[in-house]
Amino acid sequence: MSGPIFTHLATSLPATVPFVGPETQERARGRAFAARLGANENAFGPSPRVVAAMQAAASGVWMYGDPENHDLKVALAHHHGCRPENIVVGEGIDGLLGYLVRLTVGPGDPVVTSDGGYPTFAFHVAGFGGTLCKVPYRNDHEDIDALLAEAAHRRAKLVYFANPDNPMGSWHPAAAVAGMVARVPEGTLLVLDEAYVELAPDGTAPAIDPDDPRVIRMRTFSKAYGMAGARVGYAICAAPLARAFDKIRNHFGMSRISQAGAAAALADRDWLAQTRARVATARDRIAAMAHANGLLPLPSATNFVAIDCGGDARMARAVLDGLIARDIFVRMPFVAPQNRAIRISAGTAGMLDALEAALPAALAEARAALPT
Amino acid sequence: MSGPIFTHLATSLPATVPFVGPETQERARGRAFAARLGANENAFGPSPRVVAAMQAAASGVWMYGDPENHDLKVALAHHHGCRPENIVVGEGIDGLLGYLVRLTVGPGDPVVTSDGGYPTFAFHVAGFGGTLCKVPYRNDHEDIDALLAEAAHRRAKLVYFANPDNPMGSWHPAAAVAGMVARVPEGTLLVLDEAYVELAPDGTAPAIDPDDPRVIRMRTFSKAYGMAGARVGYAICAAPLARAFDKIRNHFGMSRISQAGAAAALADRDWLAQTRARVATARDRIAAMAHANGLLPLPSATNFVAIDCGGDARMARAVLDGLIARDIFVRMPFVAPQNRAIRISAGTAGMLDALEAALPAALAEARAALPT
Repeated sequence: MSGPIFTHLATSLPATVPFVGPETQERARGRAFAARLGANENAFGPSPRVVAAMQAAASGVWMYGDPENHDLKVALAHHHGCRPENIVVGEGIDGLLGYLVRLTVGPGDPVVTSDGGYPTFAFHVAGFGGTLCKVPYRNDHEDIDALLAEAAHRRAKLVYFANPDNPMGSWHPAAAVAGMVARVPEGTLLVLDEAYVELAPDGTAPAIDPDDPRVIRMRTFSKAYGMAGARVGYAICAAPLARAFDKIRNHFGMSRISQAGAAAALADRDWLAQTRARVATARDRIAAMAHANGLLPLPSATNFVAIDCGGDARMARAVLDGLIARDIFVRMPFVAPQNRAIRISAGTAGMLDALEAALPAALAEARAALPT
Repeated sequence: MSGPIFTHLATSLPATVPFVGPETQERARGRAFAARLGANENAFGPSPRVVAAMQAAASGVWMYGDPENHDLKVALAHHHGCRPENIVVGEGIDGLLGYLVRLTVGPGDPVVTSDGGYPTFAFHVAGFGGTLCKVPYRNDHEDIDALLAEAAHRRAKLVYFANPDNPMGSWHPAAAVAGMVARVPEGTLLVLDEAYVELAPDGTAPAIDPDDPRVIRMRTFSKAYGMAGARVGYAICAAPLARAFDKIRNHFGMSRISQAGAAAALADRDWLAQTRARVATARDRIAAMAHANGLLPLPSATNFVAIDCGGDARMARAVLDGLIARDIFVRMPFVAPQNRAIRISAGTAGMLDALEAALPAALAEARAALPT
């Protein structure tokens, strides 16, 4: 199957994938994880109303979902104070990032992101032949000034910025983000990934004119709303950009059940408030656990906590391996210096009990193997 | 948002969409349809076990689906007598066609299809800048010899062939398809879309070596299995081609609920047999209804029947408009001479009752407006 069938670009792409799923690891281990704390899933789950809405929708699954996602877009527009024409609904932020890159990035086109930022964005840029220009983190934060400078220097098509950030959990206040929007270079589009913003302190999400052509915001039902498995993301952007997605998107790509679930999730503000409180409690407990074991938890505005393991990547990897061996699924950043940390999702009390039981031995083992 | 942001290709694409959904029409009309018979959905619905499996999966939707679709691939491989490495699972055949075109078709690359064949395939080819070379139908059948000749003449990357065919419902026997595979030109990949094949007469699906690099088969849970809204399609192809999808696909694009539903659907062979019988009964009734109204139903191996309205596209359009006005959602082929027909899905008895009540008046109106 090499040779003439594939495009040159497809032939040139590596066989890598952005993330290995926990199920793959479970199959390799021959054993299930006791605590699923590696993918920043929201173990507090969706609202019971979401579950009920999806269960009710199941018998109607013989029908395609509305390809315009009309009702969900109207609800989202109402929620965000914009028009439905400013909303694009898609198969998770991952899917929307793929469409956006396809619309804007051709072979050799420069795109700016942070070194160690979201791998799936880098996957899409590489997948369309773009040239990824990476800017280092600064003090475990994405570096707004450096991102903007690099975007201007490279005349980048896109500059990707996540707020709060993944994998470190750090964040910038709304004013800093608004200031970034104001300084986006001519000809560059800011991709503001706010996947975790509903879990961040009030004042993290700036007010942005939805018709501002300099920025596209990405949101998701996967994190705060507890619906990662439903694959519903959305973008807020100027109407002409939103319309452009219609040229290429998989119009019938949305699950009808997921559409129903997302609408129900958006309507249940009490559940979201409860989730915020539960996540905050879990974050605090993870941080306390880190301190109790002589490790440094990083401040987080997300549903995960990055824990500095006190060494370099080898140390973090050793701790991670020790946790995996003890049936605790966690992940770690890919790039230095962030990869001195492991990343732990804000799970349920039971999951954190399992983590608490496993961490001291995993750590002792790692420290014994890698004496400082 | 014009100017430097979009790629030249994206800028050049029209704002058209492959299909307008029935919900869009309902919103424009301000009134719901009484019978949803236009999208070849399977109104007999999924197996009750599918509904139960999806309802059970709903509370686990906080977890991402397995990005490898491992369990479903193993089940599909067992069902088809191939290896999981021969299977690609994706967001409907629509999604898989998009990935396949992206892997193989660059700007200007020739691709062969039938004139009036599946619009979403044409949408993807245009979307990646391919040059679509169209071959006419012959006697309302896709023309295997002409497709192969055109593919050889154009040195096409892909030749698309649906068996059974949509929108006409016609089909070729397995031997003819096997013969087509044997004659695929060097350097061309046959895209064999078998979306409806589970509803076709026995002997329609040929035995094909899953490792044959000349062909990729597309299957779906949207039609015979009654799960259009769940977005689960799959491809069967040589392992190297299957692996190539991993370079570009949305790895976490599948709904976890849909994965569970598809596995349950595959396991319930009794339900599939019942569906085949119900669809056959509905097809026969639609055909009888056509005859009773002086129209010519075309033979069908699918869950829809194309009805020749006895004139040209204007006549078919007039009948269709009359049905729409009477709250019956139907569609019609886009291209002559197939567009002398309307296309009616094999719905439930209640839906066909509504059609039966509406058709004579719609037809009388059309005949009065367009005297022959």
